[in-house]
Amino acid sequence: MIDIILKENEKIEDLQCKSLKIIQNKKWFCFGMDAVLLTNYCDVKNNSRVADLGTGTGIIPILLSGKRNISEAVGIEIQKEVAEMANRSVELNNLEKKIKILNIDLKEATKYLEKGSFDAVISNPPYKLNNSGIINPNDQKAISRHEIKCTLEDVISVASSLLKQYGRFYMIHRPDRLVDIICLLRKHKLEPKQIRFVHPKFGDKPNMVLIRASKYGNPELKFEPPLYIYNEKGTYTDDVFKIYGM
Amino acid sequence: MIDIILKENEKIEDLQCKSLKIIQNKKWFCFGMDAVLLTNYCDVKNNSRVADLGTGTGIIPILLSGKRNISEAVGIEIQKEVAEMANRSVELNNLEKKIKILNIDLKEATKYLEKGSFDAVISNPPYKLNNSGIINPNDQKAISRHEIKCTLEDVISVASSLLKQYGRFYMIHRPDRLVDIICLLRKHKLEPKQIRFVHPKFGDKPNMVLIRASKYGNPELKFEPPLYIYNEKGTYTDDVFKIYGM
Repeated sequence: MIDIILKENEKIEDLQCKSLKIIQNKKWFCFGMDAVLLTNYCDVKNNSRVADLGTGTGIIPILLSGKRNISEAVGIEIQKEVAEMANRSVELNNLEKKIKILNIDLKEATKYLEKGSFDAVISNPPYKLNNSGIINPNDQKAISRHEIKCTLEDVISVASSLLKQYGRFYMIHRPDRLVDIICLLRKHKLEPKQIRFVHPKFGDKPNMVLIRASKYGNPELKFEPPLYIYNEKGTYTDDVFKIYGM
Repeated sequence: MIDIILKENEKIEDLQCKSLKIIQNKKWFCFGMDAVLLTNYCDVKNNSRVADLGTGTGIIPILLSGKRNISEAVGIEIQKEVAEMANRSVELNNLEKKIKILNIDLKEATKYLEKGSFDAVISNPPYKLNNSGIINPNDQKAISRHEIKCTLEDVISVASSLLKQYGRFYMIHRPDRLVDIICLLRKHKLEPKQIRFVHPKFGDKPNMVLIRASKYGNPELKFEPPLYIYNEKGTYTDDVFKIYGM
């Protein structure tokens, strides 16, 4: 079966979680540690209906289905070939009943999905501003990395529309965008409730930020202890090993 | 001379910096490590004119005069007895030419000080919201700790009014107010440029945040490495020893 569904430049990766697997294209954007950290950060409640904005390979809904008891996950991906590959990963894991991949522009999500119908929305969006002239706008990697097809505000605005009252929005991003993130979240009625910074190692400045916001939530921000990726010996910390289920 | 100027419950503390000293009243709010960390964080340029909003004992302008080459510092303090004591500390250090203590409500600062005339504004404001019924509004400690006489927005709004273009605002606060801080800074045209979190020790969540904003600055946020107060042995880290000049 695996032979049949793999295309050129594709490989299958074992997610080290309940035998889940994922297809990746070596020439496109491959999921990174950020997607795994974000999925682990999503403390969604049982039977939650979840949307992932810009799902790419489908890593977040697939991995989340192994880590949490969700009722349904919708992964939205604008790139046709990438969405098609994500869909094959869903089939590979026999998760068609739980995970739907929608090949749509996330800015049009509420044309296809009911407003206020999700318990949680997740996004590992493009990190980089679309302010460089050297980006090829047809390049899959560029679309996954830069705000070409959607801005940070698009992601946050759509997340807010899709969420129920007190529904949770989870995102990972670069700390240097924190001011924009916080101001846009509050503008779109998603109150930041929890922040966790990720540091490469002890003493380093943070290079990623995990954030949880609540739709129409009251202002009450909590910080979690930092997450350090590497210890002094240059190997993963126990926290990271735990997240990877090792 | 010291005998003359000390009042009941007052003591003199050596600031361990260029023989600077400060008078404190044991029954009022005494400056803490936060004021020292904030002063050290203020990388004001030479010959800067500086204002400190809610100066209390006067710790920030007095200590800053020893650490940086400022031309003038104005310390604003609403509590008459506290401002009077700060003024005696200025005299004790022979800094009357450099430091002025103004016993005014900071909300009225621009009645006494020219708008747009400061290179830097600093504040170690009350951290706690004034939402508890048990606070005695005449209690000096409560006024220093709770937003009784001024809100966070008052502090940020006045700072913005006093600053020149690209003038710098420095503040220390609690991380749980970060969303309010960031949104209010941007609202009042003070763009957050630099954030440093302070953690009690490695692995702890942050308990203070140092922030620098720039009036009319472009969005460009940078994080600094975390500042840890204690090392694993329970003693101050080298970073803290350096800040205290030990």
